Amino acid sequence: MPVVVVTLLTDFGTRDAYVAAMKGVILGICPEARLVDVTHEVPPQNVRAAAFLLAQAAPYFPRGTIHLAVVDPGVGSARRAVAVLTERAVFVGPDNGLFSLCLRNAPAWRAVEIANPRLRAAQVSSTFHGRDLFAPAAAHLARGVPFSELGPPVQDLVEIALQAPEVRGGVASGQVLHVDVFGNLVTDLAPEHLPTSAHLEVEGHHIGALVRTYADVSEGALCALVGSSGLVEISVRNGSAAERLGVGVGASVRAKPRA
Amino acid sequence: MPVVVVTLLTDFGTRDAYVAAMKGVILGICPEARLVDVTHEVPPQNVRAAAFLLAQAAPYFPRGTIHLAVVDPGVGSARRAVAVLTERAVFVGPDNGLFSLCLRNAPAWRAVEIANPRLRAAQVSSTFHGRDLFAPAAAHLARGVPFSELGPPVQDLVEIALQAPEVRGGVASGQVLHVDVFGNLVTDLAPEHLPTSAHLEVEGHHIGALVRTYADVSEGALCALVGSSGLVEISVRNGSAAERLGVGVGASVRAKPRA
Amino acid sequence: MPVVVVTLLTDFGTRDAYVAAMKGVILGICPEARLVDVTHEVPPQNVRAAAFLLAQAAPYFPRGTIHLAVVDPGVGSARRAVAVLTERAVFVGPDNGLFSLCLRNAPAWRAVEIANPRLRAAQVSSTFHGRDLFAPAAAHLARGVPFSELGPPVQDLVEIALQAPEVRGGVASGQVLHVDVFGNLVTDLAPEHLPTSAHLEVEGHHIGALVRTYADVSEGALCALVGSSGLVEISVRNGSAAERLGVGVGASVRAKPRA
Repeated sequence: MPVVVVTLLTDFGTRDAYVAAMKGVILGICPEARLVDVTHEVPPQNVRAAAFLLAQAAPYFPRGTIHLAVVDPGVGSARRAVAVLTERAVFVGPDNGLFSLCLRNAPAWRAVEIANPRLRAAQVSSTFHGRDLFAPAAAHLARGVPFSELGPPVQDLVEIALQAPEVRGGVASGQVLHVDVFGNLVTDLAPEHLPTSAHLEVEGHHIGALVRTYADVSEGALCALVGSSGLVEISVRNGSAAERLGVGVGASVRAKPRA
Repeated sequence: MPVVVVTLLTDFGTRDAYVAAMKGVILGICPEARLVDVTHEVPPQNVRAAAFLLAQAAPYFPRGTIHLAVVDPGVGSARRAVAVLTERAVFVGPDNGLFSLCLRNAPAWRAVEIANPRLRAAQVSSTFHGRDLFAPAAAHLARGVPFSELGPPVQDLVEIALQAPEVRGGVASGQVLHVDVFGNLVTDLAPEHLPTSAHLEVEGHHIGALVRTYADVSEGALCALVGSSGLVEISVRNGSAAERLGVGVGASVRAKPRA
Repeated sequence: MPVVVVTLLTDFGTRDAYVAAMKGVILGICPEARLVDVTHEVPPQNVRAAAFLLAQAAPYFPRGTIHLAVVDPGVGSARRAVAVLTERAVFVGPDNGLFSLCLRNAPAWRAVEIANPRLRAAQVSSTFHGRDLFAPAAAHLARGVPFSELGPPVQDLVEIALQAPEVRGGVASGQVLHVDVFGNLVTDLAPEHLPTSAHLEVEGHHIGALVRTYADVSEGALCALVGSSGLVEISVRNGSAAERLGVGVGASVRAKPRA
C-alpha cells in the first residue's frame, strides 16, 4: 500500500486535545496514514485566513494527499460537509469557502456531500464534526474507499468573496492578505499586475521598487519583493514590516509606475 | 509488525528541545513507532489539567496505543514511575494521578513500577525522567517487550481527588473542569445529572436551558449544551464564554429545574 | 528500506504554512521519511539559540538521522548552503554557525556545499531556501542519494564565537546560555569546571551549593543542579528562576569554593 499523506489544518490550537482526538480517529481507521500538521493556529473561525494558509501549503504536497481542514463557524447548522477531488489532492471539510483558493488553480474538480452514515462515527457530536465526521471521511479515503461512496455530488460549493486586485491607469491596487510570523505583509499583487519599474506604497507609506531579496537592502530597511508564494510582500530585513508600518490584513497596497 | 502509536503529553512546551529528545529516544529503540502529540502545553506541573486532557484524547486512539504522559512535579523524588495496562491502551508516566481519569472508565487495569534497569537510559538524569526513563519504557513496549518485564506489580496507584458533582433537591451542582482555546467552559456535569428542563447558571450568571448546538443561538449569545466530550459546556457562539463571564477552572455551575 | 528520520528546526513558528510546505516537499521526494519537529519557535534569526537547541536534541536521535535546520538571516545573500556528515548524523542548512555546537563533539566531519541543481526545486525562491533548497537536499539524502552528489567539499564552515567558561583562582565564571520554558537557567558551566564544594551565584545573587534534584529543596526555593543536558542549571522548584532573579541569556554565573 502506498503511503498516503493526510494534512490537518484547524483553528483548534494545540493546548487542547481536539487535534489529537482527530488523529486518533484517523489512525484507528487507517493506521498507515502519514499525518502532517499544516497549522492549528488559524485565528478562531477565520475561514478566509484558513483558505489562504491551505493554499500556501497544499501545492507542495505529493499527488494524492488528503487535506483535512476544519475551521467551521457553522458547525451543527445546515452547512454541508464536503469532500473535493482535484487532479492532485482531496480536500475534506465544511462547505464554507475553505477550499476556494486551492480550487481556483485546479483545472477541474468534483465534489460530494459527506453523507454516508457508514463512513462516520456511530454518534456524531453536534459541535465537533472534525472528530466525528471529517476525520473519518479523510481516513476512509486514505485507506482506499472510493471518493463517490462518501455521498451525492455537489456542484455549487460555497466560495469566499475575494476582491481581486485592480489595475487602472497603470496603477495596481490591492491589499494585504496575510501577515506572517516575521511581520512580512503578503499582498494579493502578483508580478503580472505591476507596471514597469513599479514603486510600492502601503497605506500611503512609500516603500520603493521591488528588490530581489532581503539581502539587497540594509539591516532593518523596508523593502518590497516577490515572496516565496509568488506574491508581492512588504518586509523589513530581519525585522517586522507589520510593526514598523502599524498595518495588518486588509491594508491597501498600490503599485505605481516610477514618477 | 503492526503499527504501534505512541502519544506524548507533557508540560514541556514546544520552544525547547525536550520533547524532541524524547522522540529521538523512542525512535532509536522502536523506529516503527508512530508518534502523535496530544499536547505539550499543559500548564506547568498541573497534573489535574493533564489528566483531563489525556482522558479527552485517549478514547479515540486505536487499541494498543501507548500513551506517554509526563507532567511530573515530583521528578527526582520518591514518587514511582509506572506503566498501566488496560484493555485498550498502555499508560506510561509518573505515579501522581495523571491516569486517574482514564482509568475511571476502564473495566480493569494492572500496573507495574518501571524498575528494570535494562529498559532505561544507561544514565538517568535526576531531572528529566521523560527522556531517560519514560520514553525508553514506552518504546520498549512499542517494540513488543512484555509489559511484566518493566518491573514489579503496583496495586495502589495515586489518584487525584476530584469532587463529584452533587445532586440535591433536584438541583445539580458541579464545577468548570477546563477552559478550552475557544473559551468554552467544560463542566463536570453530564446529562444524567440534570433535572428535566434544567436551567444552567455559572457563578450566579443565568445561562438558560440546554440547546443542541451553537447554531441554535444567535451570533455572540451565551448558551449551554452537551459538548463533544459528553459533558455540559457553557459557550458563546463564535466567541469566548470564559471572557464574557470572567470565570475559569473551578467556577461553580448549577442546573436547576425551570422555575 | 530502513526508516530514516528527518528532524526540522526553524524560526518559522507554527502559525504560517512554511513548515508544512517544507514537509510536503520532503514527502514528495521521500515518502518514507519520518518527520520530527525539534522546534519552530527559535527566536527570529537567532542562530545562537538555534545552535544550542539543536545540540540539545541531536544526540538523542538514532544514527543516520538527518537534521534540517533553517534559521537563516542571510537567505538570498552569498552565504553558502551546506550539508555536514558526521559519524552519527547529517546536518543540512545555511552555513552560518547553526551546526557549530553539534560539531564540537563530533570526532570528525566532512561538509559539502549544496550546489547540485538536480537536487533542488526547479525554481528557487530568493527568500525561502528552506522549502526550495534545504528540504529537497535533506529528502534526497533520506532516500539514499550519496552525500558527495550534493556538491563540492567545504572545509571552512562558519563557526559561532562562543566565549568558553573561565576558571581562575579556583573561581569558575560562565554565563546563562538558555532559559527554558520553566524558567530554568541553563549555564555553560559543566561539573568539571567547578571547584570542590562550589557555591553558585547569578549576577551577584547567592544560590548555594549544587543539589541533586529539585526535590532536595523546598517548594519555591532556588537551587543549582546539574541539569539533563549535563550543564549547571539554576532553578526554582516548581517555579521560574528567570522570573525570580529577573535575568536571562547572557547573565553572569560564578562558582566559588565555599568560603
